[in-house]
Amino acid sequence: MKFSLKQMPERTQPPRTYGLNMVMDKGMGTADVQNFLSVAKPYTDIVKLGFGTPYVSGNLNEKLNIYRENNIPVYFGGTLFEAFLVRDQLDDYINGAKEYGITYVEVSDGSVSIPHTDKCKIIERLVKEGFTVLSEVGSKDASHVMAPYKWIEQMTAELSAGSSYVIAEAREAGNIGIYRGTGEVREGLVDEILTKIPQEKIIWEAPQKAQQLYFIQLLGCNANLGNIAPNEVIPLEAMRIGLRSDTFDLYRDK
Amino acid sequence: MKFSLKQMPERTQPPRTYGLNMVMDKGMGTADVQNFLSVAKPYTDIVKLGFGTPYVSGNLNEKLNIYRENNIPVYFGGTLFEAFLVRDQLDDYINGAKEYGITYVEVSDGSVSIPHTDKCKIIERLVKEGFTVLSEVGSKDASHVMAPYKWIEQMTAELSAGSSYVIAEAREAGNIGIYRGTGEVREGLVDEILTKIPQEKIIWEAPQKAQQLYFIQLLGCNANLGNIAPNEVIPLEAMRIGLRSDTFDLYRDK
Amino acid sequence: MKFSLKQMPERTQPPRTYGLNMVMDKGMGTADVQNFLSVAKPYTDIVKLGFGTPYVSGNLNEKLNIYRENNIPVYFGGTLFEAFLVRDQLDDYINGAKEYGITYVEVSDGSVSIPHTDKCKIIERLVKEGFTVLSEVGSKDASHVMAPYKWIEQMTAELSAGSSYVIAEAREAGNIGIYRGTGEVREGLVDEILTKIPQEKIIWEAPQKAQQLYFIQLLGCNANLGNIAPNEVIPLEAMRIGLRSDTFDLYRDK
Repeated sequence: MKFSLKQMPERTQPPRTYGLNMVMDKGMGTADVQNFLSVAKPYTDIVKLGFGTPYVSGNLNEKLNIYRENNIPVYFGGTLFEAFLVRDQLDDYINGAKEYGITYVEVSDGSVSIPHTDKCKIIERLVKEGFTVLSEVGSKDASHVMAPYKWIEQMTAELSAGSSYVIAEAREAGNIGIYRGTGEVREGLVDEILTKIPQEKIIWEAPQKAQQLYFIQLLGCNANLGNIAPNEVIPLEAMRIGLRSDTFDLYRDK
Repeated sequence: MKFSLKQMPERTQPPRTYGLNMVMDKGMGTADVQNFLSVAKPYTDIVKLGFGTPYVSGNLNEKLNIYRENNIPVYFGGTLFEAFLVRDQLDDYINGAKEYGITYVEVSDGSVSIPHTDKCKIIERLVKEGFTVLSEVGSKDASHVMAPYKWIEQMTAELSAGSSYVIAEAREAGNIGIYRGTGEVREGLVDEILTKIPQEKIIWEAPQKAQQLYFIQLLGCNANLGNIAPNEVIPLEAMRIGLRSDTFDLYRDK
Repeated sequence: MKFSLKQMPERTQPPRTYGLNMVMDKGMGTADVQNFLSVAKPYTDIVKLGFGTPYVSGNLNEKLNIYRENNIPVYFGGTLFEAFLVRDQLDDYINGAKEYGITYVEVSDGSVSIPHTDKCKIIERLVKEGFTVLSEVGSKDASHVMAPYKWIEQMTAELSAGSSYVIAEAREAGNIGIYRGTGEVREGLVDEILTKIPQEKIIWEAPQKAQQLYFIQLLGCNANLGNIAPNEVIPLEAMRIGLRSDTFDLYRDK
């Protein structure tokens, strides 16, 4: 680096436990994965293979190998987990994940209705089996609006059950869960969650630029952000550290 | 595949005659084409080189070779056909297509006005010359709204003239023809077309996710869909078979 | 090219002094750069490494080499320039740019407030030091609307100070400066600017398709356009020469 700027915010360094980027791979070819990591590896903390895409893309083993060689943990999107769960095939899912060498797993109930105690039992079981568990809170059903105290209750219980992080649902489009249909943040909900749950334990799905900006302004450059598109990792990193016009004034006096 | 889910819908298998994905390549480099096919080949039935892009991209022969080696038929977008037609250069177009080794051809009148009988004569001629013809119905002019009976009349005549499929116009953006300017489906029009034209013979241009979802919900997992962006083929395949939250409940009881 | 159309508009040829495409690279991997140039090189006149992305992407030297081998000038986005300027590190910026072998430089004041005479002095200094200067006019602050005579005054002064081109600000999203928040062109502003500043000396940032179309319709196929996404260069070229439905009728009688 021939460039060095003064007065820059302090980003956490990899391997990170917060300040995370969770990136969504929704079916990239392996050459694209290689190319993406060649530039974005230092800012790619966790990769999610979105919804059912690992089930249909033919290059899964090869792709998992590339991520493994780069020491980047990968997990399958919650929709695939739920597709197994709802068919009473949870054991098949767990065995499959192990065969693929997956060590991170998402437990979610965005498309299925299960008692929350059952969800927590699954989390406990997966932790016992050696998985790092990310659990997602929030429905993918727009008509299902959950009160803030419910979000807090569920997040608390899931962290107690052993989840390493709780993920605040937004879908790939960023129009559900912690967002309104327009993509606008439910600010009151976010504020209330943050009174009870440590921000380091929450990954905010934030696929849209305005959503990423919101959390950076609220929580600083080390907000945990998820559902980042691969080609947006570098632009997001620039925004995190004040090198995009939106955050230019965030870390310094005018 | 270490994963196997029960109760899955039956997708047609390649080479498909229905359940088609027609993918729009609007100027990809050859490395991108290779990478795209490395993951999406089993779900890529036909490729369209969109509008005038084959005229300006320098890698046309190389690209056509790659698709040929993968047994994926390619055709040039209708706008290029019309650009030749309107200049009285139809013979040049046909000769050029043959020199490039193209066997699929689109006949459209989205930007030109020709008597429909003339359009059908061109279809007949091209079929006689050995081409597989896809013909497109619908104007690219937003102010030109065509009554449903006209759509049916033209589709019927074009299939009689020898078109293998009729394409329902939407443009790359999905905001014209069978859609309103907002991208919303003209549901009455679609329903009426389907009373007379077999769904297997229609390719619905559906570049937007909500549009793809509409036709999957209406016609099932094997709807013929077109103008799919290359990086959306895998996500669409997941959605077709119920592995995206939007279609999670489509093939099974809650 | 086995295809040749009559009655086509005359595009300028590389190396171009007008009819420019300025393309925004916002953090591409080097394989993507190679692939992009393999198809779009003849239409890629200048590349901007957007905002702070060169500061965070690890492949900067390698990427600069690729562009250099292809004789395509590269410059760093104005936000990076301003980040150095506002920290009193202008000398560091200039030295860094030289070490990287950069010969084009952008001078902007989209996120900082400096007297315009100071901006012009910086332009003069950089020209003296051997750089080709592009200077950008317009604020990134949506609430800061500048009267047309101010745009003209600043553009005139910056061209006098030695700028090779003035860039009309739009951001990556195309929703500021010469555009309204909706992306719509401020037509009166553009018309007034064009009464005083030669169109060949202005690069219009036009990331959205409708914006590109506007300037092609207003200025012809050789409008200078900027902030073009890499995968939109080929589609834009087709639109420039009338091979996209939007411009189909632009250069010929119906």
